[in-house]
Amino acid sequence: MKSTRDIILDAAAAKGAVAAADTETKNRALLAMADALIEGADGILAANAADMDAARGSIGEVMLDRLALSRERIEGMAKGIREVAALPDPVGRVLAHVERPNGLVIERTAVPMGVIAIIYESRPNVTADAAALAVKAGSACVLRAGREAHRSASAIVEAMRRGLTAAGLPGTAVNLVEDTSRQSSTELMTASGLVDLLIPRGGAGLIRACVENATVPCIETGTGICHIYVDAAADLEMAVDIVENAKCSRPSVCNACEVCLVHKDAAEKFLPMLRERIGGRVELRLDGRAAGIIDGKRAGERDFDTEFLDYILAVGVVDSLDGAIAHIAEHSTGHSDCIVTADSAAAARFLRDVDSAAVYVNASTRFTDGGEFGLGCEMGISTQKLHARGPMGLAELCTYKYIIRGDGQVR
Amino acid sequence: MKSTRDIILDAAAAKGAVAAADTETKNRALLAMADALIEGADGILAANAADMDAARGSIGEVMLDRLALSRERIEGMAKGIREVAALPDPVGRVLAHVERPNGLVIERTAVPMGVIAIIYESRPNVTADAAALAVKAGSACVLRAGREAHRSASAIVEAMRRGLTAAGLPGTAVNLVEDTSRQSSTELMTASGLVDLLIPRGGAGLIRACVENATVPCIETGTGICHIYVDAAADLEMAVDIVENAKCSRPSVCNACEVCLVHKDAAEKFLPMLRERIGGRVELRLDGRAAGIIDGKRAGERDFDTEFLDYILAVGVVDSLDGAIAHIAEHSTGHSDCIVTADSAAAARFLRDVDSAAVYVNASTRFTDGGEFGLGCEMGISTQKLHARGPMGLAELCTYKYIIRGDGQVR
Repeated sequence: MKSTRDIILDAAAAKGAVAAADTETKNRALLAMADALIEGADGILAANAADMDAARGSIGEVMLDRLALSRERIEGMAKGIREVAALPDPVGRVLAHVERPNGLVIERTAVPMGVIAIIYESRPNVTADAAALAVKAGSACVLRAGREAHRSASAIVEAMRRGLTAAGLPGTAVNLVEDTSRQSSTELMTASGLVDLLIPRGGAGLIRACVENATVPCIETGTGICHIYVDAAADLEMAVDIVENAKCSRPSVCNACEVCLVHKDAAEKFLPMLRERIGGRVELRLDGRAAGIIDGKRAGERDFDTEFLDYILAVGVVDSLDGAIAHIAEHSTGHSDCIVTADSAAAARFLRDVDSAAVYVNASTRFTDGGEFGLGCEMGISTQKLHARGPMGLAELCTYKYIIRGDGQVR
Repeated sequence: MKSTRDIILDAAAAKGAVAAADTETKNRALLAMADALIEGADGILAANAADMDAARGSIGEVMLDRLALSRERIEGMAKGIREVAALPDPVGRVLAHVERPNGLVIERTAVPMGVIAIIYESRPNVTADAAALAVKAGSACVLRAGREAHRSASAIVEAMRRGLTAAGLPGTAVNLVEDTSRQSSTELMTASGLVDLLIPRGGAGLIRACVENATVPCIETGTGICHIYVDAAADLEMAVDIVENAKCSRPSVCNACEVCLVHKDAAEKFLPMLRERIGGRVELRLDGRAAGIIDGKRAGERDFDTEFLDYILAVGVVDSLDGAIAHIAEHSTGHSDCIVTADSAAAARFLRDVDSAAVYVNASTRFTDGGEFGLGCEMGISTQKLHARGPMGLAELCTYKYIIRGDGQVR
């Protein structure tokens, strides 16, 4: 087994070639990576079958479904890579241009990060998505898949490397960590000077481990305790539509709604409507005041601080807009929060004072997504404030440098 | 003594009021802070005299000079604050605006960080600079001055707080840590969820402590081992001018040049010119090949990895542009590096392949500065790739959020 350190060094050695590759070379490599996935589908499916066999019994049905590949899913991965190839090159964009009175020309220019590490869990398709985005952004990458997806991820990386080398880029532009123990995650987190950006994609435990242990620059992603606040001035039909969509359209994702807060003046009318619409599918966990209006399970101590990722919704009644904002400040993970209201002053207050990556008026939190925001793709949803916030597209996977051209200026 | 934790909590409690303040209120507060410094000059000078008395004997002359305040320096601080007041408000700028086919209007909007912590050393004027920038960027701040500057910083903060409250902002928008032991730095580094951004401004030891211990988002600043590479195709008179300026105009700052590399074809002619120009003032530490051309001290093992901040310059001869780029990749701190050349292809290679915050062609590295780059001010020079790189102005002290306005959209 190759050591994690050596794999990181491989990526560091390859980063210069990826950074120096022009747009055409990178796109040719991406298209070849997509083709190689299709051509290598049998091998990838065999590896995935082995992963599935090994995992059955030890992980649940939802996780098994995330792990499973099919010919269609492999085609989906290839299609995703081709879409990344079609996006504009984020590298080399001049973000700011200034000519100084002394004649210096200063350009703030987007450049690659260098080495991007991504730690993820059981979905093998993340392997292809993450590698494609890193290559397009001009960076080498080091991927660490969850143990149960390792054979699948390995087969996918082998195929993609054939595409990379066919286009003249080093295969080691894309690397998969071989050690699937916790040790390899720790090595990625502490590879100071070698890993330029670490993106943990996973549960709260992984994110916490990164915050506590990482010495490399790190972007936290994904934990979403998203709120919808139904204001006194809300259109209640619209509010029910939005809560239903945000809760039920895909409960397992981070932009799904976990908490519904209702203004006390709207609660008597809104809560029965909500129960009528989603009560059959969704377990409502009610605070004391909501339980005084509709039937349902009483919320436990942790229910307003839990990312259910399931057909469960915590429901509470608040006295005012301020009460809703204060509740969100205390309980939100800073992902996506929404107000439903026809009152533009209330909307403006909520938008200003709720300190989350995405703040909504009158729309479902489910839109927090790189594709839906028009970025064309995403590496994840950042819930931190430094560098990238919300969906991270290609631009957010780059850094910049200042390029200064003179003709002998001194200070 | 108030605990560091309580001081951080004060800042967290004040951040909402600073974030919600409009441009006029913030500017009024800044002008009142400047006035209060002038009005409180006697008290500040008395506190500074006490700091100077206590420090004499235990710190050197250079540090004593950094610590010293005078009526002129206080006026300089006030002038700096007024200049920040005159800059455009960075908060609320719409960085991107998109209308989606479904009618959603999505705006990526600059918003305040929240609580910014700054750890610095002996220069009391940083207290005023940092506080002014934080307030203008809509954030509360927690300052931790070096022990030897604590009385001065405390008097400056007291004066600025009078200005803040006169303008209707909470005095706790600007806070100074009272505990001057190492413990308070550690508390700032680990105040997860309370400190949104930590900026260490100081020596390599402080930066390393942050990298190793910080659990809050952190921007490394300031260590500058800056290189000037004199290419085979350089105008040698220009090269001497640039090296002289970058080394001698202010050797104690991070954008001063510490290493000069010369192409072997230019060395025979250039090195005698360099020695002639600066050899009387600057100790040249020569690698073996340079020592074969001019007289001077032989470089020791660490001389190409040392931020001298003094009249010392490491000088080496390289075989090629590639050799220079490789040397810089190994030894640079990623701050500012320069090529002097008339060969545009060599310049383009250098600009692309040198991975530093600022890369120059034919100009002194001393220009890496917020004012010189046209940012109007700066909080420091970032040498990391995440969020901010190079001089950090008001824009880099903000984060952004996505504001999404709909009329009932669901996904």
